[in-house]
Amino acid sequence: MTSARIPRDKDNDYTREAAAARRAFIEEQSGASLEQTGQYSFDPAVLPGNIENFTGIVQMPLGFAGPVRVNGEHAEGDFYVPMATTEGTLVASYSRGMRLTREAGGITTTVVDDAMQRSPVFAFADARGARDFGIWVAENFPAIKAAAETTTRSGRLRNIEQYPASRMLYLRFNYTTGDAAGQNMCGKATFAACRWILDNYPGAITRYFLSGNMDTDKKHSQINTLHTRGKRVIAEITLPRDLLRDLMRTTPEAMYAARMTSQLGGLMAGAVHNGVHPANGIASVFIATGQDEANVAESHASLVHAEITPEGDYYYSVTLPSLIVATYGGGTGLATQRECLESMGCYGEGKARKLAEIIAATVLCGEVSLGAAVVSEEWVSSHDTYGRNRP
Amino acid sequence: MTSARIPRDKDNDYTREAAAARRAFIEEQSGASLEQTGQYSFDPAVLPGNIENFTGIVQMPLGFAGPVRVNGEHAEGDFYVPMATTEGTLVASYSRGMRLTREAGGITTTVVDDAMQRSPVFAFADARGARDFGIWVAENFPAIKAAAETTTRSGRLRNIEQYPASRMLYLRFNYTTGDAAGQNMCGKATFAACRWILDNYPGAITRYFLSGNMDTDKKHSQINTLHTRGKRVIAEITLPRDLLRDLMRTTPEAMYAARMTSQLGGLMAGAVHNGVHPANGIASVFIATGQDEANVAESHASLVHAEITPEGDYYYSVTLPSLIVATYGGGTGLATQRECLESMGCYGEGKARKLAEIIAATVLCGEVSLGAAVVSEEWVSSHDTYGRNRP
Amino acid sequence: MTSARIPRDKDNDYTREAAAARRAFIEEQSGASLEQTGQYSFDPAVLPGNIENFTGIVQMPLGFAGPVRVNGEHAEGDFYVPMATTEGTLVASYSRGMRLTREAGGITTTVVDDAMQRSPVFAFADARGARDFGIWVAENFPAIKAAAETTTRSGRLRNIEQYPASRMLYLRFNYTTGDAAGQNMCGKATFAACRWILDNYPGAITRYFLSGNMDTDKKHSQINTLHTRGKRVIAEITLPRDLLRDLMRTTPEAMYAARMTSQLGGLMAGAVHNGVHPANGIASVFIATGQDEANVAESHASLVHAEITPEGDYYYSVTLPSLIVATYGGGTGLATQRECLESMGCYGEGKARKLAEIIAATVLCGEVSLGAAVVSEEWVSSHDTYGRNRP
Amino acid sequence: MTSARIPRDKDNDYTREAAAARRAFIEEQSGASLEQTGQYSFDPAVLPGNIENFTGIVQMPLGFAGPVRVNGEHAEGDFYVPMATTEGTLVASYSRGMRLTREAGGITTTVVDDAMQRSPVFAFADARGARDFGIWVAENFPAIKAAAETTTRSGRLRNIEQYPASRMLYLRFNYTTGDAAGQNMCGKATFAACRWILDNYPGAITRYFLSGNMDTDKKHSQINTLHTRGKRVIAEITLPRDLLRDLMRTTPEAMYAARMTSQLGGLMAGAVHNGVHPANGIASVFIATGQDEANVAESHASLVHAEITPEGDYYYSVTLPSLIVATYGGGTGLATQRECLESMGCYGEGKARKLAEIIAATVLCGEVSLGAAVVSEEWVSSHDTYGRNRP
Repeated sequence: MTSARIPRDKDNDYTREAAAARRAFIEEQSGASLEQTGQYSFDPAVLPGNIENFTGIVQMPLGFAGPVRVNGEHAEGDFYVPMATTEGTLVASYSRGMRLTREAGGITTTVVDDAMQRSPVFAFADARGARDFGIWVAENFPAIKAAAETTTRSGRLRNIEQYPASRMLYLRFNYTTGDAAGQNMCGKATFAACRWILDNYPGAITRYFLSGNMDTDKKHSQINTLHTRGKRVIAEITLPRDLLRDLMRTTPEAMYAARMTSQLGGLMAGAVHNGVHPANGIASVFIATGQDEANVAESHASLVHAEITPEGDYYYSVTLPSLIVATYGGGTGLATQRECLESMGCYGEGKARKLAEIIAATVLCGEVSLGAAVVSEEWVSSHDTYGRNRP
Repeated sequence: MTSARIPRDKDNDYTREAAAARRAFIEEQSGASLEQTGQYSFDPAVLPGNIENFTGIVQMPLGFAGPVRVNGEHAEGDFYVPMATTEGTLVASYSRGMRLTREAGGITTTVVDDAMQRSPVFAFADARGARDFGIWVAENFPAIKAAAETTTRSGRLRNIEQYPASRMLYLRFNYTTGDAAGQNMCGKATFAACRWILDNYPGAITRYFLSGNMDTDKKHSQINTLHTRGKRVIAEITLPRDLLRDLMRTTPEAMYAARMTSQLGGLMAGAVHNGVHPANGIASVFIATGQDEANVAESHASLVHAEITPEGDYYYSVTLPSLIVATYGGGTGLATQRECLESMGCYGEGKARKLAEIIAATVLCGEVSLGAAVVSEEWVSSHDTYGRNRP
Repeated sequence: MTSARIPRDKDNDYTREAAAARRAFIEEQSGASLEQTGQYSFDPAVLPGNIENFTGIVQMPLGFAGPVRVNGEHAEGDFYVPMATTEGTLVASYSRGMRLTREAGGITTTVVDDAMQRSPVFAFADARGARDFGIWVAENFPAIKAAAETTTRSGRLRNIEQYPASRMLYLRFNYTTGDAAGQNMCGKATFAACRWILDNYPGAITRYFLSGNMDTDKKHSQINTLHTRGKRVIAEITLPRDLLRDLMRTTPEAMYAARMTSQLGGLMAGAVHNGVHPANGIASVFIATGQDEANVAESHASLVHAEITPEGDYYYSVTLPSLIVATYGGGTGLATQRECLESMGCYGEGKARKLAEIIAATVLCGEVSLGAAVVSEEWVSSHDTYGRNRP
Repeated sequence: MTSARIPRDKDNDYTREAAAARRAFIEEQSGASLEQTGQYSFDPAVLPGNIENFTGIVQMPLGFAGPVRVNGEHAEGDFYVPMATTEGTLVASYSRGMRLTREAGGITTTVVDDAMQRSPVFAFADARGARDFGIWVAENFPAIKAAAETTTRSGRLRNIEQYPASRMLYLRFNYTTGDAAGQNMCGKATFAACRWILDNYPGAITRYFLSGNMDTDKKHSQINTLHTRGKRVIAEITLPRDLLRDLMRTTPEAMYAARMTSQLGGLMAGAVHNGVHPANGIASVFIATGQDEANVAESHASLVHAEITPEGDYYYSVTLPSLIVATYGGGTGLATQRECLESMGCYGEGKARKLAEIIAATVLCGEVSLGAAVVSEEWVSSHDTYGRNRP
């Protein structure tokens, strides 16, 4: 084994030439062709901050679903939703749900919370040391906030939660981050805040880490569901009984019975949320719009609540407690990703909540579409139709 | 609001022309340009079964990390790992971990279980009806298996777990699925098995759904961690103390202290696993290799176990209990995705476990790299270096 | 501080005299009186195996609720249920639910599984060592079973589950334990089995513990909910609409709406089960009947499923997946505890499932009683009536 | 089936005569004797507020463990701990841990939080209605607090947490409750607060329940672990290496290895906490001291953190995040229960935190004792010694 190093060009690494050299290197090492990955249409000079060892691209198929009708506070109207996926049926199924909800008058969406976190931890000689520190942190919040905010133009430190265990105090810094997802902004700001704390705390800190994991970065957690990570956004609609019959060949009662049976199964299985498949819609829109695709881990959580109304219609709501989205920074500015954002009028500053609303509405459409398919026994046949089921 | 329908060409929908028509439509509706999304290098005729309303592509930047040295049973040698991401630092950080583990002699990987599920549920007049049914299902397993397997060439029904609650019996069908991820194969096979059951069970079934949610599709769950979904694969290595000092500027003790503090934080927060960020590596390799990107929700689970050895070195292991990967079917055959798989010698039949081993090794590299960065306080500065931290 | 040792009488420690000596000692050390704790009516000679440093008794008030009408397979008829508690309203509330369910025709109960566990863990040089060991364990199950069963007359090793993680293999031995709760029986049998394994396994085991915690002794866990610990017992009933109105001043719809709202709250809070307060009924019957009172931790889990029937009545079911009960051994033979068991015809061999059925029915009564009280706003006023609410 | 009603004496129900009549009734119905349950030494007139249908007592064996040396802020010195149990080995094992920790200088205990909850829920036409309500609640906190506190002398409403989901807003009222456990006090106060809210909120509330289950009464939950229920108390100690060797025949390394292996098992099993068996100590002290025995469900949660110190000793800590204890009200005033409290100087006002500290220290003793027994393979043999293991 030679373990030859992937070539880099110290001065011009983000160029077509450097990428080509890397493709040639990988081709030589592996014997595989990378011809198609070399077919891209943007200037690699934009990529610093997005990737290292840039070699080419993955061409992810993109389909539009919809339109979805959103009665939001930030998103109002009909939106065609870009979904990048390789999973057949997905776009069709979401589109089906979008037709249903559109004919029902559209989905009401509401952003009810918005925060991003970094969670440092401080250790002491004993639990009392941690408790004393907690009092000091609360008293010195203005100075800590000032130190954190020296590092950022758009981030604001909203509050600091405290969680004591053993001789440690775990802090959870909550920031508003404008239209960026903000994990790195929060990291940098909290680093500065911790520096200030370490310089100014009169007591003895025995150990400190910038993350004690209560930000649960890239992981689902109950604390996210309780206290929000990214946007907490709620989508809701009342689906008329007749519409369910005509478009979905089902009834509120049948869908509700399936939901309740499914909820019990999920509870027994230790499923982390009671939705059906928010991850599908979220992942495909995330890829299309330049979101951090690993955040599907956190963003896929949901709290679904449905009711058969006194009138016999079907009220359905999805609460996404930890939807992490950006319309600025990260991958949002890349050529195709930006086009996808712009197709919804969601690129740039002041658009993150709009995007959150559209995604929440999209998720709801996927929930009712798959839910109806399971009930009406069209789940398998639809996959046959759309070509997924090869023997 | 006009809610014009996205155009389809019933006879030739998977053509460049149909895609161009859709782009023109979206451009007209939204006022946005989709020029870049129209730049793709493959023939859309391959796409049925992967997407509907095909409109163009998202160009996802691709970098290679590594090589990672894998001492697996299916993957042996050095592999350059394709990672598609828009998150700066990610490829660099995994590469750093790969260098460390390579110099330590490589990562041992072991696939210890392999199964995909579909979980139908049957309801009865009362709990005794469900219990009787469970006995009948066990007795009739051969016939149920035969019915299921009529629908598939490569899938095999391994066993059926039973979970009673209320007057329902939840079943969990476990299949081996060859080199496909197999969710749809399992769905179709279980649908056939359920048809056979409904036709042959002598008792009265009051209700039945093809999924009672104990397959926890697209959701993290404890049952996945206990009983595997996809591949259960373990990566392990012993990192020499000197190497940690020289390459990572840290010690086993410092890394271990951070890990233990972090584990306690995660337990308190209700984090669903005790790893750091497997989702990052998994998501980026998934996109590069045509995996179902929504499966990050299930695949991001991990069980990390570390020990300082009697010799003072650092044993580190990552168990991925529910890693869903395919080297055949789904998006694996698309042009760039296939190239990425081939660059690791992982395309096609007989390769799924090899890919699982490489991903598990990759995940381990990311864990130790980020773990060391947190400890050595290089986390924030490395993001500055790689351009992520803009004020 | 003197830290004088509590006196023991090596030869006659389980006597009234030894107990009196200890009371005198504690009284002297603390200045408190232990007069009342010295008032007991049994011979301390029966106590070895139940307590050390026997000093006296706690007099726990006992009330009977009911009768509860049980249509079980082991319990059939009306039972007056002994509940030992100091919590006002508890007996009254369960009695209220018992009246409701009795007038509705009684509660159907079904024991669907029955097992007790001990879960040793074995460590190896690497994950492959653990995998090899797993194959060997499966192949040698008959010999392992024989070794385990040498230690017990009534315990039978049913099967061994395997859970691999890192370089360990966690085993979960499932026993049937007759009418004993069986934790210690399982411990002793598994200890013998492990001795046999250690003597006979040809490979190298680097570490072994009799419990690797997957028996989750004295802790709630998802594995208990999935795979049963003790008895898995289901109680179910259909409550006529008119009866709910007449006796509880409520409707199926109102109770159901409260239940659904409460379930969503519990899911958001990370509550471990979706029942209301099974712990209340379980704890008070456990104390009355000589059960291990710490097992409330495991036994309090439930899976509640309710439906409004097409006829407009209210189907309600409680599944207790991990109810640990004994009618033999432990505290069941003590004077008052045995009387309580005998009052239900539940003392001695062949009675454990009967007791499980009565407890499950009792739990259901408490669920519907409190559920109705919350809905009809009688929750606070009933506590006033029964004297709990002092300003 | 006759279903005869348990006799009550409307005017004099809490008398020896009424209890005797009930015993006679149960004896007649069941054919069992209740002679022993009739042997009690207190006046039933004290019982209103503690039990209904008072019939007699359960005589629960009581042993004292210890003394445990507590270096608390409320408990200082050596305490003999009353434990009521029928489980052999329990008192002996806790005593063993108390000797170890006493010789190590005693256990440091710290109460870091203290709150009891009631969690009403309010529903609205849509999520925005819930959001508006949340703003109003925050603005009107002083008036809500005043309304709540009209009902209680000792309870104080500290703050109200808000959790939005669907079109509901779940509130979580946090009270300090003096030395009472306070669940009913909180219920009554919150009921008054909700009355005020319903009378004064200008918007339309569509539905309201006094509990939306985010108080997770009688259930373990993550929110309790995060935000405390009852007392949050931390016990910690550093155990010298030599002492572990001399008294426990083990080493810090062996105990730590067992702990880490066990933690991984618990994580895989979905155990709700990482302690060993806090439920044992908590349940037995709860019964002895008149606590609500059902609260074992909530109180058994723990966060254990251990470290081998640079000096080679063993730091061990137990955090109990939801320990619900009272020294006033409930069952604390009953004859034997009060004696048990008084034997620790813990009866009456101003003592609840002292009791919490003693219980936390007790729990720690049980953790290290059982932990050492597992490691030194004395677990089974000790149960043989103390008579639990009958074949």
